[in-house]
Amino acid sequence: MATRFSSTGLVVDGNGPAQVALNFLDSVLRGIGQVMLQNNPYAGLLFLAGIFYNSRLFGIAVLIGTVVGTLTAMLLRVAPSKVRDGLFGFNGALAAIALTYFFEPNALAWGYTICAVAMTSILMATMMQWLEPWKISPLTAPFVITTLCFLLAGASFGRLHPTHLLPAAELPKAAIVEGVVGLSTIGHGLLNGVAQVFFQDNIITGALFAIGLLISSRRAFTFALCGSLVGLLVSWGMGAPEPSIRAGVFGFNSVLTAIAMESVGFASGGASQIYALLAAIAATVVYATISTILQPVGMPALTLPFVLVVWVFALGAREFRKLQIPKPEPQPEE
Amino acid sequence: MATRFSSTGLVVDGNGPAQVALNFLDSVLRGIGQVMLQNNPYAGLLFLAGIFYNSRLFGIAVLIGTVVGTLTAMLLRVAPSKVRDGLFGFNGALAAIALTYFFEPNALAWGYTICAVAMTSILMATMMQWLEPWKISPLTAPFVITTLCFLLAGASFGRLHPTHLLPAAELPKAAIVEGVVGLSTIGHGLLNGVAQVFFQDNIITGALFAIGLLISSRRAFTFALCGSLVGLLVSWGMGAPEPSIRAGVFGFNSVLTAIAMESVGFASGGASQIYALLAAIAATVVYATISTILQPVGMPALTLPFVLVVWVFALGAREFRKLQIPKPEPQPEE
Amino acid sequence: MATRFSSTGLVVDGNGPAQVALNFLDSVLRGIGQVMLQNNPYAGLLFLAGIFYNSRLFGIAVLIGTVVGTLTAMLLRVAPSKVRDGLFGFNGALAAIALTYFFEPNALAWGYTICAVAMTSILMATMMQWLEPWKISPLTAPFVITTLCFLLAGASFGRLHPTHLLPAAELPKAAIVEGVVGLSTIGHGLLNGVAQVFFQDNIITGALFAIGLLISSRRAFTFALCGSLVGLLVSWGMGAPEPSIRAGVFGFNSVLTAIAMESVGFASGGASQIYALLAAIAATVVYATISTILQPVGMPALTLPFVLVVWVFALGAREFRKLQIPKPEPQPEE
Repeated sequence: MATRFSSTGLVVDGNGPAQVALNFLDSVLRGIGQVMLQNNPYAGLLFLAGIFYNSRLFGIAVLIGTVVGTLTAMLLRVAPSKVRDGLFGFNGALAAIALTYFFEPNALAWGYTICAVAMTSILMATMMQWLEPWKISPLTAPFVITTLCFLLAGASFGRLHPTHLLPAAELPKAAIVEGVVGLSTIGHGLLNGVAQVFFQDNIITGALFAIGLLISSRRAFTFALCGSLVGLLVSWGMGAPEPSIRAGVFGFNSVLTAIAMESVGFASGGASQIYALLAAIAATVVYATISTILQPVGMPALTLPFVLVVWVFALGAREFRKLQIPKPEPQPEE
Repeated sequence: MATRFSSTGLVVDGNGPAQVALNFLDSVLRGIGQVMLQNNPYAGLLFLAGIFYNSRLFGIAVLIGTVVGTLTAMLLRVAPSKVRDGLFGFNGALAAIALTYFFEPNALAWGYTICAVAMTSILMATMMQWLEPWKISPLTAPFVITTLCFLLAGASFGRLHPTHLLPAAELPKAAIVEGVVGLSTIGHGLLNGVAQVFFQDNIITGALFAIGLLISSRRAFTFALCGSLVGLLVSWGMGAPEPSIRAGVFGFNSVLTAIAMESVGFASGGASQIYALLAAIAATVVYATISTILQPVGMPALTLPFVLVVWVFALGAREFRKLQIPKPEPQPEE
Repeated sequence: MATRFSSTGLVVDGNGPAQVALNFLDSVLRGIGQVMLQNNPYAGLLFLAGIFYNSRLFGIAVLIGTVVGTLTAMLLRVAPSKVRDGLFGFNGALAAIALTYFFEPNALAWGYTICAVAMTSILMATMMQWLEPWKISPLTAPFVITTLCFLLAGASFGRLHPTHLLPAAELPKAAIVEGVVGLSTIGHGLLNGVAQVFFQDNIITGALFAIGLLISSRRAFTFALCGSLVGLLVSWGMGAPEPSIRAGVFGFNSVLTAIAMESVGFASGGASQIYALLAAIAATVVYATISTILQPVGMPALTLPFVLVVWVFALGAREFRKLQIPKPEPQPEE
């Protein structure tokens, strides 16, 4: 049994049960890491630790979601390399945690959740095919679509009981400036913005997530915190309510957007950084947008703002020659 | 005049008025058959009989819709083979029946309906072009989009009068379990699920539709009834109200989804059947989803759940090697 | 400094500051002209004059929007020919005027507007890439999407104050016929339909816009007025309220749709004209549709109906051989 230790995981050669189990564990941890775009099992482990620190229920949900999502893809025989990179785990992880967050957990709700998780893996495959002409990634769209579907369907199903965390359906009305933003708001908002990526409202959890990012990539860590700060400052400046700013709800889409902007690989220089900044600002505005659109049906925005903004900025960048890494001049052949 | 009798229709060679009329009739009946994905004029005839059995008004609407939709395509000179297969009839058929169902029929409403039917043929052409990169079919999307457009526009137009069948615009609220599901619910629900594909709430009509399917394809018949059963069981298990289960409203999208899954042609075996089952379950959930989304604007879900679920499952399947029919090994050339 | 005078603008060769400024001015005026699909700086100048005639505030907003949108594209190094044709100006022009129309203008609102305008240029690039497989134009979609986003987000931001012109969020209810349509309604409606393309409710402004079109293209002028008439007649016939018909709100999407239909270049003949007529009718119906859909979130339809209808009719036309210009027969080579 040859074991390859690498900075990005533990992959074991061979077909024995122990090897298969270890490789599966590696895929599951990468799946959790991919929630923040990190193909790195140690990052996944720290994210999991952060969730368990805040709530055992959500920790179990994340594990079940990642395992079921990954298994569904394996049973349907997706290309193994995609499974190994955790690409069929992270949407299931988020769907499981979201449905546990918004529905009272009972046997029926767990069955419903597992069914939803299986759907995320099918939708992931669909979106890979659908986005093929543009070579862009589905990101967390399968999670968002599946979760909104299964939450919205709940309104017809008398045996599912929403928790008080699900927004009430109501017509949008104009916001008023509410509460005073102080240093404590900023400290909490910054870390909660990272924690809210997994629906957690806990600064220690946010800190553990940030450490997970740091282990995986220093740049991802920096962009994530800057993204959280952008979300916080924009929402504060525009007059969002203080409790929302403190809870980090304006931040998590900016966090994910900033990480994604970092990973796209633009030309180094000021233009690329301003472009990423614009994307983080857009994510904050679009979070407010999607929240308003979904108010009449009583739904949360989830990470839909992140998905839409990254698609827009990643596709658009192909028209912008200022952002493109110059191709090396072809060497004359001798 | 050479007449070719075949198991799938009556096509007549020649250009005389009688031949043209007979071929047009064949296209119209196939158009009605295509509502349940059957390119078969006898199936179309039985569907038409089932509708006339329940309501002469809806029978006339279906005929007008199929004729106008087909004629629009012919006048604009669509490729004749597509017209002959009924592909420009079924969306018109459904749009005509839906608008007659939801608006009080008067002269203006009929003109409006005919205009909508012509639009379904244009939208069908659009969606064929739009879906070209993925090689998937528009299904009943042109009907759904056109009908929702023309129904929603009605709210600005004081001379159109909605019937009491159009849902009232209201904010969604949590469902409660309502009524007791008995054997009679199941019997009615099963056949009404098939009948509701054409907005009919009548078990004899449902039975005639099922016979039409049986004439066209035994597998389509089996999948349709299984789809109806899945819709019924899922909605019952989740606690949907008994009157809705009895009326078959949770079934018709599962019926269509199951027929479509049958027609895609996956590898034979358990995995493909479980995949079709998952699709039928998804269609039931997504029916509840779309119904909730459309509640604030007072609109019915129509067959949108079927369209979305089949697109997702058909596209996704291309990543799943377990579902693909293995290609025959190339024979060595001699 | 060689100056080329042409019927479609003033382009100056050379790199001196005066030349650069003149060329930039040319791009900005073309950008304003492109709002009505005219790549013509004189048309743009007349549109600008029409707006300033009605309101200095909106005139300034249009100028700022076109300048910032064009500059964003230049800074990100979009292909210069696209910038020169005004393709990165018109969405910014419309976004700036719309946000000034619906938010009380203060320093924060202006900053927010400029941010939105920059986003329209990014979204324009995105949509060019996104629509590439179908070779269709983004039209004013970047304006519509950005503006709806920034308006909807306003509901979470306490420091932005909507004007009384923003529709209130409410559930749609059935319309009743209201007021009597007379000659004065028709005269006002016809010109206001053209004026409303830029959110102006002023018949002199409408007349100036029409003259701008006439300078650019006699056919565009004719199609625009016919489009306005179609919108007026359809909404009147269906029983829309008289004040809306007079204000031209049912007309501006038909105006734009008719101009676009003219520019697509179908085969000459009756079929193409009926097709354009159907498109203008569809634009009126879809205007009513989108208005109803957006009622629960209190949003205006903007030019979304125009965008959707032109996409549908332009794509669909590729299946319709009756509309296609016959290709010249290949000449035998000698």
